[in-house]
Amino acid sequence: MKKVAIGIDIGGTNTDFAYVNRDGQVIAEGKIKTNYGEAEVFVGALVEKLRIVQKKIGEPVKVIGIGVGAPMGNINKGTIEYPADLPWKGVTPMADLINSHCGLPVFVTNDANAAAVGEMLFGAAKGMKNFVVITLGTGLGSGIVVDGKLVYGENGFAGEIGHTTVRPGRTNRECGCGRVGCLETYVSATGLIRTMFKILADSVKDSELRDYSYNEMTSLKIAEAAERGDELAIRAFNHTGEILGLKLADLVAHTNPEAIFLFGGLTLAKGLILEPTQKAFKENMLSIYKDKVKLLPSGLNSKNAAVLGASALAWEKYNGED
Amino acid sequence: MKKVAIGIDIGGTNTDFAYVNRDGQVIAEGKIKTNYGEAEVFVGALVEKLRIVQKKIGEPVKVIGIGVGAPMGNINKGTIEYPADLPWKGVTPMADLINSHCGLPVFVTNDANAAAVGEMLFGAAKGMKNFVVITLGTGLGSGIVVDGKLVYGENGFAGEIGHTTVRPGRTNRECGCGRVGCLETYVSATGLIRTMFKILADSVKDSELRDYSYNEMTSLKIAEAAERGDELAIRAFNHTGEILGLKLADLVAHTNPEAIFLFGGLTLAKGLILEPTQKAFKENMLSIYKDKVKLLPSGLNSKNAAVLGASALAWEKYNGED
Repeated sequence: MKKVAIGIDIGGTNTDFAYVNRDGQVIAEGKIKTNYGEAEVFVGALVEKLRIVQKKIGEPVKVIGIGVGAPMGNINKGTIEYPADLPWKGVTPMADLINSHCGLPVFVTNDANAAAVGEMLFGAAKGMKNFVVITLGTGLGSGIVVDGKLVYGENGFAGEIGHTTVRPGRTNRECGCGRVGCLETYVSATGLIRTMFKILADSVKDSELRDYSYNEMTSLKIAEAAERGDELAIRAFNHTGEILGLKLADLVAHTNPEAIFLFGGLTLAKGLILEPTQKAFKENMLSIYKDKVKLLPSGLNSKNAAVLGASALAWEKYNGED
Repeated sequence: MKKVAIGIDIGGTNTDFAYVNRDGQVIAEGKIKTNYGEAEVFVGALVEKLRIVQKKIGEPVKVIGIGVGAPMGNINKGTIEYPADLPWKGVTPMADLINSHCGLPVFVTNDANAAAVGEMLFGAAKGMKNFVVITLGTGLGSGIVVDGKLVYGENGFAGEIGHTTVRPGRTNRECGCGRVGCLETYVSATGLIRTMFKILADSVKDSELRDYSYNEMTSLKIAEAAERGDELAIRAFNHTGEILGLKLADLVAHTNPEAIFLFGGLTLAKGLILEPTQKAFKENMLSIYKDKVKLLPSGLNSKNAAVLGASALAWEKYNGED
């Protein structure tokens, strides 16, 4: 019987899932809304939807395990703890809830950690022992791999570099975490929009982006304006890349990875974000690391990357027995 | 026969060594000057001195290996690479040079990594799986332990957080590494002196430290003045601790350690440096880590800590065979 793992990516609005084989190919996929008031009800609906999709595969499969990527997912406990963007407050025992329906091993971690395991098993980090994945979406996440293993840390919360401080004492940019000046308040889709508004406020230059409210503004609109030559939009990308490149150079000084992979929505802007990041990364790197540490785009198909990463969690733990 | 490891700490001026047993007790010790123009000559003199000291132990011992802590020590290659403060330029194959005299296994890494292994085997990190050691001496070093193993990284140079950037764009404090604004230009014995001079320049207040030239100033003098109530000296320590505490909070967001240990000369100032550091550490910590990550003084006897750490490198690799 064909073996598959289920990868589940729980986001603030939608939860995507896929059945993924050992080679990282998606056999079947689906989604449900995340917006159920109670986690138990959400899991009941999710498991039902999984069954429906599994039946459509057309041949019997053996599910070896389930991996879940979710904000504030804790691998040690299988819990989701105080997520800012999900409907369930406090601590949700997600692994236990899913396991109680299906009896399968369930592994829960945050989406950036899942992305890192996915990159290692299915992406451009195959064969690498030391690397970091940075996810640039609504926020900034990171997954750190040392000696071929994802670093979870003492409490299961390693790799939160989106919440390291940028420009201490000089910023009053508030972060959703309750602190000020976190990296993700500058470097993320939201951070780019905030920087764009700062530039619109500071500059007297014209820009097509002066027609949008804060709530209308998106990173895609800024990217499109930049591609049409809008000077202030280009400036916003450059500023974002400068901060990211510097912080990535700092990151290298912690675990000395072979490569850093950039992943997620904001990387769709390609050269607009990658070039200034690469430039600042090289300029700020300590000489012993120069020309040794690569900055690369993710090798995962961006459409399925989150669920691939989540499924990789289960594949990584699978010991090969039937 | 009693088993011992040799720990060697190569510093800019002196090289200390000790014969250390499995329990971290120093059986014999000695030192030579580091100031030999050629590394081969230095190693010849060092090995000779080791033999003399070993003879004085009074009973036959079996040396199981040699650990070397040195600036820019590379564990992968056993080399010392482009150290700023040692007499030998370029790349010195230190492990091979020592091994060619005695045939023993030789392990070379930087002093902060050695301190971290020492803390794990002989100090306050016994039994801990995830922790970081910060050495505050002339510079700032760090050794990061994940899952019970020191992180060396892809090129053997993990844990150089003294060279992460403080206050980008706002500083012009030059670093020995060729960059500007590195953490160790603020937080180290040298960093404290630089901050003291900045404060003496900025303030109009009186201070006993206005009588010293830059070359005469030491962190000890600043500590003594602070203990006597010198307001500007206290301000220098507070400023140093604020920056360190913030950067340690950032560090936690990388590998989520159980504890951070502070080690080295500057920690002799005790509360003067520890209190403002502890305060800033707590204030800047992301909520998921709060009350979980401890900031502690090193548990190694400061007199022998460097050689104990170096000997621990050899003990850690020893497989117990005769």
